[in-house]
Amino acid sequence: MADKSLDKGSSGEDIRYDHKWGFTDTYFKVNPDHTVTVTGSRYALSGTVMHEFLPFVEEMLDIKIDFDNLKPEVQNKPVAPARLNETFYQAVQAQLSPDKVSIEDRERLIHSHGQTTADEVYKVLYGALDRVVDMVVYPESQEDVALIIKLAGQHDVCLVPYGGGTSVSCALQLPQNETRSIVSVDMRRMDQILWIDHENFRAGVQAGIYGKDLEARLERLGYTSGHEPDSLELSTLGGWIATNASGMKKNRYGNIEDIVESVTMVTPRGVIESGPAMPRQSLGIDPKQVAFGSEGNLGIITSAVIRIHKLPEAKKYGSLVFPTFKAGTAFLYELAQTGTLPASIRLLDNIQFRFGSALKGEPTRWEAIMGDIQKFFLLKVKKFDPHELCAATIVMEGTKEQVEYQAKLINRMAKKYGGIAGGETNGKRGYMLTYAIAYIRDFLTDFHIIGETYETTVPWNKVQAVLDSVAVQVFKKHAEYGLPGRPYISPRITQLYHTGVCIYFTHGFSTLGVANPDEVFSEIEHSLRETIMAAGGSISHHHGVGKIRKDFMKHAISPAAVELIKDIKQANDPQNIFGIRNNIFAESAAAERVGG
Amino acid sequence: MADKSLDKGSSGEDIRYDHKWGFTDTYFKVNPDHTVTVTGSRYALSGTVMHEFLPFVEEMLDIKIDFDNLKPEVQNKPVAPARLNETFYQAVQAQLSPDKVSIEDRERLIHSHGQTTADEVYKVLYGALDRVVDMVVYPESQEDVALIIKLAGQHDVCLVPYGGGTSVSCALQLPQNETRSIVSVDMRRMDQILWIDHENFRAGVQAGIYGKDLEARLERLGYTSGHEPDSLELSTLGGWIATNASGMKKNRYGNIEDIVESVTMVTPRGVIESGPAMPRQSLGIDPKQVAFGSEGNLGIITSAVIRIHKLPEAKKYGSLVFPTFKAGTAFLYELAQTGTLPASIRLLDNIQFRFGSALKGEPTRWEAIMGDIQKFFLLKVKKFDPHELCAATIVMEGTKEQVEYQAKLINRMAKKYGGIAGGETNGKRGYMLTYAIAYIRDFLTDFHIIGETYETTVPWNKVQAVLDSVAVQVFKKHAEYGLPGRPYISPRITQLYHTGVCIYFTHGFSTLGVANPDEVFSEIEHSLRETIMAAGGSISHHHGVGKIRKDFMKHAISPAAVELIKDIKQANDPQNIFGIRNNIFAESAAAERVGG
Repeated sequence: MADKSLDKGSSGEDIRYDHKWGFTDTYFKVNPDHTVTVTGSRYALSGTVMHEFLPFVEEMLDIKIDFDNLKPEVQNKPVAPARLNETFYQAVQAQLSPDKVSIEDRERLIHSHGQTTADEVYKVLYGALDRVVDMVVYPESQEDVALIIKLAGQHDVCLVPYGGGTSVSCALQLPQNETRSIVSVDMRRMDQILWIDHENFRAGVQAGIYGKDLEARLERLGYTSGHEPDSLELSTLGGWIATNASGMKKNRYGNIEDIVESVTMVTPRGVIESGPAMPRQSLGIDPKQVAFGSEGNLGIITSAVIRIHKLPEAKKYGSLVFPTFKAGTAFLYELAQTGTLPASIRLLDNIQFRFGSALKGEPTRWEAIMGDIQKFFLLKVKKFDPHELCAATIVMEGTKEQVEYQAKLINRMAKKYGGIAGGETNGKRGYMLTYAIAYIRDFLTDFHIIGETYETTVPWNKVQAVLDSVAVQVFKKHAEYGLPGRPYISPRITQLYHTGVCIYFTHGFSTLGVANPDEVFSEIEHSLRETIMAAGGSISHHHGVGKIRKDFMKHAISPAAVELIKDIKQANDPQNIFGIRNNIFAESAAAERVGG
Repeated sequence: MADKSLDKGSSGEDIRYDHKWGFTDTYFKVNPDHTVTVTGSRYALSGTVMHEFLPFVEEMLDIKIDFDNLKPEVQNKPVAPARLNETFYQAVQAQLSPDKVSIEDRERLIHSHGQTTADEVYKVLYGALDRVVDMVVYPESQEDVALIIKLAGQHDVCLVPYGGGTSVSCALQLPQNETRSIVSVDMRRMDQILWIDHENFRAGVQAGIYGKDLEARLERLGYTSGHEPDSLELSTLGGWIATNASGMKKNRYGNIEDIVESVTMVTPRGVIESGPAMPRQSLGIDPKQVAFGSEGNLGIITSAVIRIHKLPEAKKYGSLVFPTFKAGTAFLYELAQTGTLPASIRLLDNIQFRFGSALKGEPTRWEAIMGDIQKFFLLKVKKFDPHELCAATIVMEGTKEQVEYQAKLINRMAKKYGGIAGGETNGKRGYMLTYAIAYIRDFLTDFHIIGETYETTVPWNKVQAVLDSVAVQVFKKHAEYGLPGRPYISPRITQLYHTGVCIYFTHGFSTLGVANPDEVFSEIEHSLRETIMAAGGSISHHHGVGKIRKDFMKHAISPAAVELIKDIKQANDPQNIFGIRNNIFAESAAAERVGG
């Protein structure tokens, strides 16, 4: 039945950056001839010499990169002295074990931010964080977690759950007004698959496991959870639950709420969990629902029971080229209504499509010939406008037969909207690019370029309005702030639902000569969220609210619902031990800006 | 875009029984020759003369029906005088309108029970209810609901939300210790489809709409919600949400939590709801989750936004015969892992299969010949044991191509498990029987036979253990209580999930000569739930907890989770206006029985 012990997967070679995104073996490097190479061998893109990358950036942003004027990272990053709660520190060392505690400056700094561009990464790399955690603890069991919470209550310290540190909603940003000692609870030593139930296809998993490790260990046993958020390599199960994560292959495997059957969360009042995990049940108000979206406000998610699937017999990538984004969206609209969706299908706009091309290396002679033929066909025969066409990347999984059926259905339907098959190689490449391009933000920052992605959910009939109004607002704000060059704004549709889609925007601009680029960026981001919601988009599809979207909660839930959430907090954590202040508990600094 | 007004569907010809299940045009009638006919023309079964029905009942229960000894229904049903809260009554009449209030005895009695066999229907038909509501109000708008709640708070009355009255968990049973005046809030005048959003495939619907009316009105516009609980004709949208309902076609359309995008619930503290409905979003802890499974404890669900689907291009029924229930279950197990499931597939055990045959009328000559050939093939050629074989009924929906593909996949896979196609007619008949057979319970009660269905969720590898232990326990209890004849116990699998199934048991026995049949039945039911859960089943798949399963909540959620739910209640309804006391709020009368 259930294996009670499984070897701990080793991921010793994965060394993360302290503050930037990703692993240290990987970075985008400018060669003397101004081509760019991705170092290491981690990704499909690694080793590729990219000639067109920087010219594309210059064209898009309407700037000239000055290679002699790089933005300097602060070398010896300032870390304020720890406001150590001595009695808590003593108690934790005595009752937990000294190797589960750190007050080292580097550790403290690493645990004091997530990956939000302007408010977090920018600050730590180029300035200083306003507040740094005073201690880091590393529980190794649920008992450790319960003990830490108990001691925190006794000694009046503030606890901040820490998973993969990939939050892009300022959920890990520490509240300025917190006067207590702040202790980061790093969950990453709780990274075990506790058991596998081979007959019922589920696993008990500790919350601190990285997605990457989870998948690698499941794969060795012939399984997958099917959860593939863009942050898969760096984010954890507990973080997925706390933020309502979504994966690229949700059409086949579901979003995190579909994957997780039960959750164990330790709060100051006790352990919130349900009995044996069930495929589905009706037990009244389901207590696990307070773990989803809890964003660190309530307690610490220690483990969950998740669904696992046998590795699919067949997996096939595909791609499609459409004459316009509108045509591609219309295709997705029809496809979504069939109920037969590939594991993943994403629609990239013209800019991202061209960006993908810019990331290609020198083609071989054969590739060059084939590329020319393809280009000729698209532009001359089909008369696609090279500045209008867009592309979809597709992943199909299942039995061979299911995959073939899906491919047939998709290709046939795509034709109705002028879509042309773009080949498996391009599909796979586009899908896999996701992980490597996440490093580009930190690369471009060297050249005074700031960027971020925003996601939102949009009902089908509001897609165009959201796209249009964001495009207008980005340029308006750009001009208003007198920013150099042109803004980069590029949407992709990443998830399909019966009633709408998830749209991801990539937004960036040059900040050369801008006095306070991070503040300007934050303000524009805030105004874009306002624009998105006014046009019919949601507060967030899966990143969560954290602190940056706090001002918009009044449009997301009713006043009585706000009171309800506050009462849940009050009941579980009356001392506010979990004082990270996300979502409706966030301090309203930003509210001033929009009169909210 | 969204139609703001739609005609109210007329369902004037649907007259419900006051206390029994269903509509008054339909009942099972014994003919002078002891054949049975279903009256009216509402169902496929209506008009059929069934020769084998009563002999089958006699065989199964090992009894002889005495047609001269019928169980007499109480004719003038006792209704205790209303404990009228005069000031509330005055206020409601003045501020609401007199035609939205009733203190009539018949109305009060109808609103004082659900459809739980022993604890409710048996009591009202053959004895007397312990407590009857003192007044019934009929709000016609969300404002009416808010006003009623406000007045209830001011005048200290207890409110009980009432939808279709189909609860089978004693959720509508009134608490004996309630000293306040109890007012039933009948939601059925709030039965409008408020708007249809044709582009995004969703509808805003008032909570008091019957499933049948919802589907009829959607169908006229070319849509379906796809939600088909067995109680579809009589239950309401609000009730589905409050109990976590599940529909027969959930594989294609989802369970209620997948169908509903947003909920509006009025509580004493205010309106709990979220902003514009979204396909999916991450807004922190989702307040709508407290409406799901609220079971009348928190407030009144007034409306919801639901997903709707274009009527499928193709719909096809099918059936399969398997040599054994075990073989059928093994087939379902493999099918569930493919991810390509028909809208509905249900597996009936041998007894239910034979019962289905007993409900058939006299065959035509051609049917008789075909039946003989089929029987010969199954029993002689395939050597199926007539007392072991079982059947699956299937509904496939989608495009013609999808339906064909599903049928092909199912038939091919079924062969691996010895399954044989049983034809479309049998499939359709089996599926449609659901609605008509619900009347049988009340028919058989005339002959001193008591019966009920129990549902549970079971992980795949516990299915056999649950089936076996229930079978053993039923006979053990039957003997223990010295009941006449033999118990009828028959399972079917009604829902498939990745990690398990929903099992429905039908249980019944003759109570001839038993002094307190309803109490005996309740006690056996309680003991069977204990058996089910000990063997690995859940507290409920979709009926909910109500009062009958209250004792088992301690196995379903942790103590801290119980406190959490209590706090949610306390925060929203500190006066306990919604004092129906379901789930963890139920009085623990039954606890004594099991030492819990």
